[in-house]
Amino acid sequence: MSKLDETIAALKFDEKGLIPAFVVDAENKDVLMMAWMNAQSLRTTVETGQTHFWSRSRRKFWKKGESSGHTQDVRAVYTDCDADTLVVEVIQHGAACHEGYRSCFYRRLGADGGWDVVAEKVFDPDRVYKDEA
Amino acid sequence: MSKLDETIAALKFDEKGLIPAFVVDAENKDVLMMAWMNAQSLRTTVETGQTHFWSRSRRKFWKKGESSGHTQDVRAVYTDCDADTLVVEVIQHGAACHEGYRSCFYRRLGADGGWDVVAEKVFDPDRVYKDEA
Repeated sequence: MSKLDETIAALKFDEKGLIPAFVVDAENKDVLMMAWMNAQSLRTTVETGQTHFWSRSRRKFWKKGESSGHTQDVRAVYTDCDADTLVVEVIQHGAACHEGYRSCFYRRLGADGGWDVVAEKVFDPDRVYKDEA
Repeated sequence: MSKLDETIAALKFDEKGLIPAFVVDAENKDVLMMAWMNAQSLRTTVETGQTHFWSRSRRKFWKKGESSGHTQDVRAVYTDCDADTLVVEVIQHGAACHEGYRSCFYRRLGADGGWDVVAEKVFDPDRVYKDEA
C-alpha cells in the first residue's frame, strides 16, 4: 500500500464513499465549483494532475472537461481538520460551470431575499455541449 | 411566505435536510471551513448576519464562535448552478479552526503522498476552549 493509498484510506468518506471537493481558482482564489470525489477519483486526480469526480446523479466517474474541453490542472490539494472535505486548487481552462459561467457560484443573495446573477457568461453552453444536446 | 423563505425552500437540501456551506475569508479569499446548514441555520445566518450551522455529529444547531468568541460576520452568500451548495463570505474574528489555525484547511498533500501542515496556529485551543475541556 503506497503512502497515497494510506492517506486516501484515512480520509472520512461519507456513507456513500464520497467526500465533497471544493475547486478553487489557483490564480485569483475564486471558488469555481463543488463536486464529489470517491477514493478512485481522488487517486486519479492526484496521479494524472487533472480533476476527476463522481457524479451522484449519473452514478458515474467523470473527468472535468471530458465533454467541454474545460479541464482543470491541479496545483494543490488540501484537507481540513476533520479530514472530511477537500479543497483543490486548479488552473481552470475555459470555464468551470456547464451553464457558461467561469464559476458555478454566479448568484449572490440580494437584500430582497432573492438571488442576483453577479457574473457574465464566458461561453455559450449550446455550442460547447452541442454533441450532448 | 417571504421572498427569503421562498429562496431557501427552493434550495436543494440533501435527504437529511442539509446543504454544504463553504466559508471564505472576505478579505483574502482563503477557504476557512466547511460546515452544514439546514433551512433554519441559513435563515438565522441571513437574519443575524452571523454564521450558524447544523452539527451532524452533535445533532445540534450552533453559532460559529459561541464557545470561542471567533464569530463570522457575513458579507455575502452565493449558491451554485445546481442550488445544492453555498459559499459564504465572512469577516472572520479570531480563527475559524477549533485546532487553532486560521483556516481548517491547513494541510496540503505533499509529493510523497502524505499531508504537510502548511500553516501556523494563531491561538492555543486549550486556552480558548478551556471551559469545554
